[in-house]
Amino acid sequence: MTKILIVGGVAGGASAAARARRLSEEAEIIMFERGEFVSFANCGLPYHIGGDIQDRSKLLLQTPESFLARFNVDVRVMNEVVSINRFEKTVSVRNTLDNSEYVESYDFLLLSPGAAPIVPPIPGIDNPLTHSLRNIPDMDKILKTIEMNKPEHATVVGGGFIGLEMMEAFHQLGIKTSLVEMADQVMTPVDKEMAGFAHAEIREKGIDLRLGVALESVEFVPNEHVASVESGESEEHQHIQGELNLSLNNGESLTTDILIMAIGVRPETTLASEAGLRMGKLGGIYTNESMQTSDPAIYAVGDAIEEADFVTGNPTLVPLAGPANRQGRMAADNMLGRSETYQGTQGTAICKIFDLAVASTGKNEKSLKREGINYEKVYVHTASHASYYPGAEIVSFKMLFDPETGKILGAQAVGKDGVDKRIDIMAVAQRAGMIVEQLQHLELTYAPPYGSAKDVINQAAFVACNIMKGDASPIHFDEIDELSDNQLLLDVRNPAELENVGYIEGSINIPVDRLRHRMHELPKDKEIIVICQVGLRGHVAYRQLVNNGFKARNLIGGYRTYKFAKA
Amino acid sequence: MTKILIVGGVAGGASAAARARRLSEEAEIIMFERGEFVSFANCGLPYHIGGDIQDRSKLLLQTPESFLARFNVDVRVMNEVVSINRFEKTVSVRNTLDNSEYVESYDFLLLSPGAAPIVPPIPGIDNPLTHSLRNIPDMDKILKTIEMNKPEHATVVGGGFIGLEMMEAFHQLGIKTSLVEMADQVMTPVDKEMAGFAHAEIREKGIDLRLGVALESVEFVPNEHVASVESGESEEHQHIQGELNLSLNNGESLTTDILIMAIGVRPETTLASEAGLRMGKLGGIYTNESMQTSDPAIYAVGDAIEEADFVTGNPTLVPLAGPANRQGRMAADNMLGRSETYQGTQGTAICKIFDLAVASTGKNEKSLKREGINYEKVYVHTASHASYYPGAEIVSFKMLFDPETGKILGAQAVGKDGVDKRIDIMAVAQRAGMIVEQLQHLELTYAPPYGSAKDVINQAAFVACNIMKGDASPIHFDEIDELSDNQLLLDVRNPAELENVGYIEGSINIPVDRLRHRMHELPKDKEIIVICQVGLRGHVAYRQLVNNGFKARNLIGGYRTYKFAKA
Repeated sequence: MTKILIVGGVAGGASAAARARRLSEEAEIIMFERGEFVSFANCGLPYHIGGDIQDRSKLLLQTPESFLARFNVDVRVMNEVVSINRFEKTVSVRNTLDNSEYVESYDFLLLSPGAAPIVPPIPGIDNPLTHSLRNIPDMDKILKTIEMNKPEHATVVGGGFIGLEMMEAFHQLGIKTSLVEMADQVMTPVDKEMAGFAHAEIREKGIDLRLGVALESVEFVPNEHVASVESGESEEHQHIQGELNLSLNNGESLTTDILIMAIGVRPETTLASEAGLRMGKLGGIYTNESMQTSDPAIYAVGDAIEEADFVTGNPTLVPLAGPANRQGRMAADNMLGRSETYQGTQGTAICKIFDLAVASTGKNEKSLKREGINYEKVYVHTASHASYYPGAEIVSFKMLFDPETGKILGAQAVGKDGVDKRIDIMAVAQRAGMIVEQLQHLELTYAPPYGSAKDVINQAAFVACNIMKGDASPIHFDEIDELSDNQLLLDVRNPAELENVGYIEGSINIPVDRLRHRMHELPKDKEIIVICQVGLRGHVAYRQLVNNGFKARNLIGGYRTYKFAKA
Repeated sequence: MTKILIVGGVAGGASAAARARRLSEEAEIIMFERGEFVSFANCGLPYHIGGDIQDRSKLLLQTPESFLARFNVDVRVMNEVVSINRFEKTVSVRNTLDNSEYVESYDFLLLSPGAAPIVPPIPGIDNPLTHSLRNIPDMDKILKTIEMNKPEHATVVGGGFIGLEMMEAFHQLGIKTSLVEMADQVMTPVDKEMAGFAHAEIREKGIDLRLGVALESVEFVPNEHVASVESGESEEHQHIQGELNLSLNNGESLTTDILIMAIGVRPETTLASEAGLRMGKLGGIYTNESMQTSDPAIYAVGDAIEEADFVTGNPTLVPLAGPANRQGRMAADNMLGRSETYQGTQGTAICKIFDLAVASTGKNEKSLKREGINYEKVYVHTASHASYYPGAEIVSFKMLFDPETGKILGAQAVGKDGVDKRIDIMAVAQRAGMIVEQLQHLELTYAPPYGSAKDVINQAAFVACNIMKGDASPIHFDEIDELSDNQLLLDVRNPAELENVGYIEGSINIPVDRLRHRMHELPKDKEIIVICQVGLRGHVAYRQLVNNGFKARNLIGGYRTYKFAKA
């Protein structure tokens, strides 16, 4: 009879427990969770705070009782595994209710401890109005602070998933909100010019967005009237009434009524490293492709581990629910004698930012540059479905690929409709090893309410293949501000568009439909940089020019890419 | 200088013209369209009739003038190519305004004539209240009939895309509608049990749906008062006032005020066959993978041609806009010296049916049976995004695969949210040659508003792989009504579900969470057929049973699949 111990009862651990039981009735399965809750919807926490998910009980997907009834798993909440004795194959467990300790033996041990919010050593950060958000008790504390302190202003530090979701939650509660991010962009899985769309949306909703700014210190000022005993309120309640004075590293300051620290997470590796398990270079637990640690009897999954990047094969840390769930299932398979292998993580991710979705898969341009990988990129901005059918929204799409082989390196998309779909398509295509040439042929669902006969992805592939075949000479938004005297900007939009949408100083305007008649106005000795709104008319104009003997390049993604890159 | 003539100015023809010009400034390009309009949004016509697309001009994507200005293409509307002289490489063209004829020569000829609605020789069908819908003039005639005859009741014959869209258009206009379909299901790209969800939706909206019924004859009864000259209305208007008596082949009859014939389309091949071009077995124009007909100087694309089925390589007729557009682009490439090859058609399709989307890609079960291809299938019914986040809807998903190799044969989905996305994912995976094992690893966008950590597709792959590995013994909905005495139905849902949702007569009810305690009530000599709502708890129960020495099978897709198959 195989005895399996599982440390951590959320995504990876719970998936492993259920799968293990389906494979074997005989296995003894014990799942330890140091908190009060197992298998809760941690991705839903910000949405309960913001009120989208009204019913708190909806976040509690399973209970120890339901796990026992359905899967015959012995779930021990408030039980923390404090050490591993690898030689005896035992763990020491502390019951956090009475502080008693006991020992359990194992045949296989699965570590699914997750990752903890990083709280930097900022002076004053340890105060009753400052929170991070990882679990149900954290959420309850934030809700309690909101209830007691009735914040008129909230500050979120960190523009990643949780920071952005908490920003939106506060906004939805009618609380004025500042978002402070040290980098020059939010949502770092996408590149800065794509994050620009999010920046515009965030500012449009009235959020005080501060990029390139770090929090330096925090001062907690309790409310005077509640500090007095006469207020009649309990000690506990007094503690969470007051305000915070925040000092930022640009010399500015902020007064706020609640502070959320969401600058990132760090793998929980103490248990593993104290047991002498091998650690990866990035600070996660090392695992092989079977989800095995350096000790063959110990598996590890989820946010705590390093896994292989799908594109490069290099170790990466990807604290996301999808991989954790699938790794847990796979670890259970392998502990029970199967041989399933994990096939690398693309880091496919999406975040709702008010009305926008921002999503990506694979490598971004920043990381390709950093790792010295040769790439080309295209941008398209195309309607999410037939533009003549109501509800169409622009999908702004970026694709990164190897210009020699056509290999897909990564994709990013932003928009109000159909963003998840396009990134899913790219995630599948990339995982399948498709090249951009093949994306031209993708046959996707089309009816006016759902798509276009030539979908966003087909169009991006057309542009990429045009570049690879030499049918298009691209220039990118980040080169436009540094043109030489031998280059000339030609804007082929209609004059009304330039007026309404904006234009680049110094450009000549000849609408594309007039270009054949006015081509003689252009010089043949200069390189003509063609600009339109999204790059489509620009390509038509570009082809006319080069087919008539001009030197030209087309601004890929057009003025729209150029403009939002500065947002 | 290459001279290219194009017959037909909508999807395939217009795409070819634009692409050809981008490749060559020198080419002479003439596009003939016998109708008044080029490059109109034919997929949008029903939505203008129903009022979703208010502005008729939105359907007119390009005009002859805009084509000339942007692409220097000589567009000749009201010009019908009536014959091809292949030996002289010329066509004869009739100007339909003045009936004059002239001859144009070509280097390359592209045929993109489309497909015409089939109007069967039903007695009385030729009357002023009966219409089909292919183009703008057809749409205008239907709108005029609605305006003049103010129908209180409409009848649509044919439950394909156009029939379903017209049904919805009439319903939206407040007109009581009958839908008459000769087959036992609407939307034949999906299998009958999946169409069951559509049948339920259609009936729920109050449509009089008649399946397995054909129209036999039509009698036009003009209104008496308008037949008299005193009514003061013009001759034309009198013609479209009255009603129709429809006789059906089941002996029933229907009185209706407008009749739409939408039983299908037939490739327009007259021009090609009169020119002696090779025809395919299915009645379309033969083309090779370069989109070339049997005459190397003549290409053909779109609804008029036969193309290769992606799965089998056999010829198929797929009258859809996506393939037509991409084929047109590719034909232009090849006429101008490139060598692009068409890589087969999956027939990816989607239709909006009121609040539902119904979609499919690849082969359906009907055609796999017909062609004798070995397959297995799975059904899952899973939330379109995290079920705890508002707006989640069930995606009902069917996947067909080769149980030996795991090759993806086809997929179908129905639901109110996220259906297009799932079929797109499957269309990409199938085109990439992925097997179901790989679908387990797909890393799709997940955040509560968009997906689940284990997506519909991951789950379907888990079920398929369980079957392939022998971890699950499936039974399907269509076997349930024919069980033997050696089989026993075990429903593992909660008693309340059976009461609310329904159940299969004769089944024993033991809720899954009680099964371990009550397993002794079950016989070991019979095969236990496990049933739950969607197949998930059934699998858990199935695993318990077989791991405890029982013989069992699990109803894939659960009671939900069984129930809607009868709808």
